Amino acid sequence: MTDRCAEFRALHHARRPLLLPNAWDHASAAALARRGHPAIGTTSLGVAAAAGRPDGTAATAGETLALARRLAPLPVLLSVDVEAGFSDDPATVAGYVTELAGLGVVGINLEDGRADGTLTEPELLADKVAAVKAAVPDLFVNARTDTWWLGVDDPLGQTLVRARAYRAAGADGIFVPGVVDPATLGVLTEWIDAPVNVLYQPGGPGLDKLAAVGVARVSTGSLLFRVALAAALATADGVRAGGLAAPDGLPSYAEVQALVPPAPGAQPDGRLP
Amino acid sequence: MTDRCAEFRALHHARRPLLLPNAWDHASAAALARRGHPAIGTTSLGVAAAAGRPDGTAATAGETLALARRLAPLPVLLSVDVEAGFSDDPATVAGYVTELAGLGVVGINLEDGRADGTLTEPELLADKVAAVKAAVPDLFVNARTDTWWLGVDDPLGQTLVRARAYRAAGADGIFVPGVVDPATLGVLTEWIDAPVNVLYQPGGPGLDKLAAVGVARVSTGSLLFRVALAAALATADGVRAGGLAAPDGLPSYAEVQALVPPAPGAQPDGRLP
Repeated sequence: MTDRCAEFRALHHARRPLLLPNAWDHASAAALARRGHPAIGTTSLGVAAAAGRPDGTAATAGETLALARRLAPLPVLLSVDVEAGFSDDPATVAGYVTELAGLGVVGINLEDGRADGTLTEPELLADKVAAVKAAVPDLFVNARTDTWWLGVDDPLGQTLVRARAYRAAGADGIFVPGVVDPATLGVLTEWIDAPVNVLYQPGGPGLDKLAAVGVARVSTGSLLFRVALAAALATADGVRAGGLAAPDGLPSYAEVQALVPPAPGAQPDGRLP
Repeated sequence: MTDRCAEFRALHHARRPLLLPNAWDHASAAALARRGHPAIGTTSLGVAAAAGRPDGTAATAGETLALARRLAPLPVLLSVDVEAGFSDDPATVAGYVTELAGLGVVGINLEDGRADGTLTEPELLADKVAAVKAAVPDLFVNARTDTWWLGVDDPLGQTLVRARAYRAAGADGIFVPGVVDPATLGVLTEWIDAPVNVLYQPGGPGLDKLAAVGVARVSTGSLLFRVALAAALATADGVRAGGLAAPDGLPSYAEVQALVPPAPGAQPDGRLP
């Protein structure tokens, strides 16, 4: 196993859950890495919205690969959200993920939800997981089930059945977005024999509480992207309404510029707006 | 003159200064348009940082064009920051801007600052302005002088000399980032015979004050991008520190997804994270 893949895997077995903040472009990824996060994910909603493409569809396959290529040189472990693999053909999915792995990506999220709001048969996602693991065994495959997210009847039973099928196919972790109830999370982590990943919800249980019920990994999903967008709009509203005070913690021009490789011949503090 | 170009031009002669908020990707542009801004600009720093390229260099020429292509279908007037035109050859700059105009872009910013922190000779930017205006006469060319921004000696004299040269070459407006002192702004708007554009600074004069000293247009530059990045990082810090409350004004998943064209077959409220 490559060192980077092993390092990423080990983060799922630490005393504190792995917090995986999700980036959508080079700036957000570079800034999160610089802030000390050892690993980051991508958010398919953020990637799709930034590019002006619908989320949950194959339209974002090219954008996702282009983003992975941009983020690969960053000093951070990178897991990529590949939605449902952008295909229903397991071999095609495995080929796509192999390309990501070749860039240095250490993990993926692969889901059973469809853009039309339905779930695929568990066998289909299991086949995709198996194809990916056969092609790139070291890569951490986080199989996501959208049972709760899409509001199926009997989500607990469906989740456990699907998690078992995905594990049998070789999945390294199971992601169940939409569950915040600690008791239910405790049942999931007890009955799923792999690191369980949940989606962080503002106002929901914090990392300590999630750790106490056995959660191994916490993603922020599209939260950071949505917070960023809201902050930009609120600032534009404030300026339009007449003006606003200098916000706290605002990175300077130079600090933003320092997130990217320097231009040949640029001043260290290159002062262009 | 095309209707859209005429509409954009007229916004520089309204009773209140034109507030031009600057977007860096499809989501920020679409959201600002939906928030009721009649016109938006782009921020070269934001575009460069989002793409992981250095700002102020030709590396962002392709990114800028790709972004313009993505934003062109939005129901908003679009002015594009083309830095120094990504070339020192006026004909090449005119060709690039003609391509933008063909997409429906109604204005550009073209600057005399260089990535190495120096100013070009005024004749060079004047030649670029003249070449662009000859190629696409309807397009609003906002000539930016970086006299204050780059801290030259005698910025007032330099600015007035350059503004006169750029106006003589056909510039439609003059952008002087870095000035916040109302008295100095009053001198600039009195002596420059074209709409004067300033860079909004948090804590500096608001729109009413800027209007009172004759400012015609106010840009936010990289401010919204930097605010967005700061908000995302603060949220990730909050989650890492234990958890955080639900932030105000957070757009939902569906609201973000509604900013892009719908996917074929997607649910109206497509509920994928």
